Amino acid sequence: MTEDAARILAAHTREVADFPKPGVMFKDLTPLFREPEAFQVVLDDIAERWAGKVDVVAGVEARGFILGAPLALRMGLGFVPIRKAGKLPGDTHTRSYDLEYGTATIEVTTDAFTAGHRVLLVDDVLATGGTAAAACDLVEGAGAEVVALEMLLELSFLNGRDKLPGREVRAILVD
Amino acid sequence: MTEDAARILAAHTREVADFPKPGVMFKDLTPLFREPEAFQVVLDDIAERWAGKVDVVAGVEARGFILGAPLALRMGLGFVPIRKAGKLPGDTHTRSYDLEYGTATIEVTTDAFTAGHRVLLVDDVLATGGTAAAACDLVEGAGAEVVALEMLLELSFLNGRDKLPGREVRAILVD
Repeated sequence: MTEDAARILAAHTREVADFPKPGVMFKDLTPLFREPEAFQVVLDDIAERWAGKVDVVAGVEARGFILGAPLALRMGLGFVPIRKAGKLPGDTHTRSYDLEYGTATIEVTTDAFTAGHRVLLVDDVLATGGTAAAACDLVEGAGAEVVALEMLLELSFLNGRDKLPGREVRAILVD
Repeated sequence: MTEDAARILAAHTREVADFPKPGVMFKDLTPLFREPEAFQVVLDDIAERWAGKVDVVAGVEARGFILGAPLALRMGLGFVPIRKAGKLPGDTHTRSYDLEYGTATIEVTTDAFTAGHRVLLVDDVLATGGTAAAACDLVEGAGAEVVALEMLLELSFLNGRDKLPGREVRAILVD
């Protein structure tokens, strides 16, 4: 099943040279989102792996929303958006983390999780792992448990897993 | 059907005072996204209204992704993300528009639409209409046709429809 999903994902990934900076080969997943049958195969693969094992799906702004919202509905679960700083109203939990240049902050509303909820954390791409690690800390600081991380694509040469020791990390396609 | 959706949407909207600035009562829709049965009723309402009348769903970053991606799958259609400047790789169409302070730019990849495709444009909230009007121009500049705009919530006191003359604009809940 994951082999089908990987083949389909590979067929719907567009490579764009020198984005976001010279020397980087960007993997654009927008072709997948334009093909509902292909996108559904990928969602089904993830959904079947975690059925009954998680209580809620969380996704990181912004491409994690495109994956996470339909995945949550496919699983009959709620979706929690993890957003960049300043986008969510009211009381929030926050985590800051280092980027190549500077820092970034992500947030979630304090009412997002029920204590002890088992969370499936999703994003489209696992790169350096900084955002994913901060998202795990954020979810667990909010009293929930990250059961696993599901990514569509892992850029393994960036060693993102090194920032996620002991975590269950799955990627449909590893590059 | 829309009455059910409106009632459910109202029951899952959280009001937060003084966000994003003093004097503004923010309508937070994250409670809707956490309740899959409620969210599904809202999606079904929109999907049934446009079944067979549109070819693709487009949504504006970032909350438009949470609505647009599952709506597109529910309708068996592709989803096109309209993003803020600098987020999409390769060749893009762009449109800039005025904000209260400064300007904003939105983009879509040049391969996003097929010429003549009928587009359902979605976002969570219709406020001043600036983003919605720019998104319509962007889609039509890319050779597709905006059949309608569907919003979850319209803040009618901001007169967003004035920026969308002649457009089919629907909102499930009008405030």
